[in-house]
Amino acid sequence: SKLSGAGLEAEVVETAGHPVVLGEWRGAGAEAPTVLVYGHYDVQPPDPLKLWTSPPFEPQFRENRLYARGSADDKGQLYLHVKAAEAHLKGAGALPVNLIILAEGEEEVGSPNLVPFVEAHKERLACDAVVISDTGMFAPGLPSLLFSLRGLAYFEIHVEGPSSDLHSGAYGGPVVNPAMALSRMLATLHDDRGRIVIDGFYDDVLDWDRESRDAIRDLPFDEDDFAKSLGAAPEGGEPGFSVLERLWIRPTCEVNGLLSGYTGEGAKTVLPAEAMAKVSFRLVSDQTPQGVAELFRAHVASVTPPGVTVTVEELQGGMPWRAQLDGRLKEAATSALLKAFGSAPVLVGGGGSIPIVGEFERILDAPVLLMGFSLPGANLHAPNEWFPEENIELGIRALAYLYEELGQPRTPQPPGDSGPLQPRQRLAK
Amino acid sequence: SKLSGAGLEAEVVETAGHPVVLGEWRGAGAEAPTVLVYGHYDVQPPDPLKLWTSPPFEPQFRENRLYARGSADDKGQLYLHVKAAEAHLKGAGALPVNLIILAEGEEEVGSPNLVPFVEAHKERLACDAVVISDTGMFAPGLPSLLFSLRGLAYFEIHVEGPSSDLHSGAYGGPVVNPAMALSRMLATLHDDRGRIVIDGFYDDVLDWDRESRDAIRDLPFDEDDFAKSLGAAPEGGEPGFSVLERLWIRPTCEVNGLLSGYTGEGAKTVLPAEAMAKVSFRLVSDQTPQGVAELFRAHVASVTPPGVTVTVEELQGGMPWRAQLDGRLKEAATSALLKAFGSAPVLVGGGGSIPIVGEFERILDAPVLLMGFSLPGANLHAPNEWFPEENIELGIRALAYLYEELGQPRTPQPPGDSGPLQPRQRLAK
Repeated sequence: SKLSGAGLEAEVVETAGHPVVLGEWRGAGAEAPTVLVYGHYDVQPPDPLKLWTSPPFEPQFRENRLYARGSADDKGQLYLHVKAAEAHLKGAGALPVNLIILAEGEEEVGSPNLVPFVEAHKERLACDAVVISDTGMFAPGLPSLLFSLRGLAYFEIHVEGPSSDLHSGAYGGPVVNPAMALSRMLATLHDDRGRIVIDGFYDDVLDWDRESRDAIRDLPFDEDDFAKSLGAAPEGGEPGFSVLERLWIRPTCEVNGLLSGYTGEGAKTVLPAEAMAKVSFRLVSDQTPQGVAELFRAHVASVTPPGVTVTVEELQGGMPWRAQLDGRLKEAATSALLKAFGSAPVLVGGGGSIPIVGEFERILDAPVLLMGFSLPGANLHAPNEWFPEENIELGIRALAYLYEELGQPRTPQPPGDSGPLQPRQRLAK
Repeated sequence: SKLSGAGLEAEVVETAGHPVVLGEWRGAGAEAPTVLVYGHYDVQPPDPLKLWTSPPFEPQFRENRLYARGSADDKGQLYLHVKAAEAHLKGAGALPVNLIILAEGEEEVGSPNLVPFVEAHKERLACDAVVISDTGMFAPGLPSLLFSLRGLAYFEIHVEGPSSDLHSGAYGGPVVNPAMALSRMLATLHDDRGRIVIDGFYDDVLDWDRESRDAIRDLPFDEDDFAKSLGAAPEGGEPGFSVLERLWIRPTCEVNGLLSGYTGEGAKTVLPAEAMAKVSFRLVSDQTPQGVAELFRAHVASVTPPGVTVTVEELQGGMPWRAQLDGRLKEAATSALLKAFGSAPVLVGGGGSIPIVGEFERILDAPVLLMGFSLPGANLHAPNEWFPEENIELGIRALAYLYEELGQPRTPQPPGDSGPLQPRQRLAK
């Protein structure tokens, strides 16, 4: 209804999972480029609920922020596109480009049905560029374009010992404790300094050139402020890399969850029958989720102690991505952001994963632009997620300008340019 | 009401926590000995409920077993004493001894109010022996007396990292992960072979003499059957000790619970703000909970990585205990068990902890007899706790015989015995 209200033709298209919502406006003509906007309407679970200041699904403005689950990731940002389109359609009566807004509902679980959907609707979704606002700006007032995203390989490990929970007094000693076994296995994933010590793990990790690393070091970034904002010391990760490098261009291995035995109040003297850990890796080029899964399984097998049974389940995977940031698309984005924010964008990395980015490029043969408006510390995936109030208007403006820039023929042609390109090619590098 | 119904004078006595229930019968006269029976009416939490075949608080007879939470630990066994007393009182109209039955309600949380209670009611509780049925028989048909119990030192460790849960993509790398830090710390508690490597941990552990270890080895015990009954391989604990030795005469360190981050279904890419573990030690003579707490705190401090804050809370503690099994009390128990079961008792260790045992000896200056009737695999502290149906009657008989034996003057006197002892001394070694 928001899409229809904005003036687009809206349709809910069923998939094997949650439906895809499409909004389309094709009135710019065959000569104008087509822009596909991608976003997602699903969100991470809001728990632990007790840590939210206001209810996660009742948006509240507070301290110049809009607090709500999904305000930044990604419903709030997706909605900026709807309002930017509405501004053109209600103001000028037309958009400068043909526009497709695609909202899926399974991004947070790895988009299991989106690739089949895009494959099946390849013609309908044909476009000259894909624009995604599911990322942030490097700092307030400093708009940003992404040069990379990390991939993901997410696992659940189960360690099973005795066939039921045992009394830790009556049976403690000869029985291998699954919670202890799990801890010992998890402790083998890193060395003391934070480097991952799974055999072969770094073999496919690209070393970035000096110039790119220098560009990252030139960004206005204070490691102490960063740490302070998180209430944490930035002591984690690989030695020899800056905080931003550890966030953007280096892979990680994290424990996302642990559960075993008795976790309530007080002392229950149980020797648990099983223990579970969620373990995930952030990947960088040229790692693959399949490759890391293979290395991880081999590592787990090599450190499984006698007396327990260990299973590893793959819950989610996504490829890392590197942008090809040049050509018309970057120019248009730069110009639009400069107009809206008064500042040209910086190029930044993305620590998170948007697995569909690489798939769009592959299936639709169109470049992807990652241009988002949330801010550092937005509590993505955590309690009290927020989006900056001023970026609601500035973001809508920037996107409206972006559509305008992309709809305008490039004049004057730079020397060597052989005239107007065909729509399907003109935005690519 | 069960105590009154059996013919004892019953009273509920308030404490700072759950009340103590006392049942008394003092009709045997000043020349007869006084026996204090101790048991507890509280039980371990029944969760996880889904693993119970029948509801934990609706006792059900099945396959010659009585299934219920507390059937073995300890309401069921305490009730055997009530019925044994009732048999004498309703049959003969009198008990051969003066009897005090004391049931407390805080044993499973370390009996925080029982020692003050016993101290405060020292005169009323004065006795010649304490009898406790909160342990098991070594095997079906093989009654047992305990030569030792392990002590307990139970802790909760909290590891705190960032001030809230973070997105593991947006922040993973430079931030120290509390779940990972906790796992690495827990992994330092044992060496690869299962020996505890906390500095000084074994300094106070008594080495048992060859004769005592041989007696343990002579018990009819099949390590493979034991493992099979638990669905676990007996690969845990210290090398160089048999399974029974690892259960009875060696200390342990167990993880009883683990909790951190996201533990629900699927993949939540959270970098958790905190992680928790419950860690407990079973102690043997001459270790003390205070001494182990000191060593554990020092160890945790020495392995705490930078970037996280770690706190250690002491939840429960209890001293290990060694029985002085000779003299009149052992003779009476041996005779009673032989009559009821047709078999003399074996001497066994207890892997668990009953902290009050040592305290009774200290405060009341009376020896303690641990003579219980549950069987191995009784699922103490676990789902589907059970008590053997035939031991309901045999246990009541054995206890009724025990009262009888203890009430009879010792005739003929063995050579060197200098005549009848005074009641307060005659049962001690």
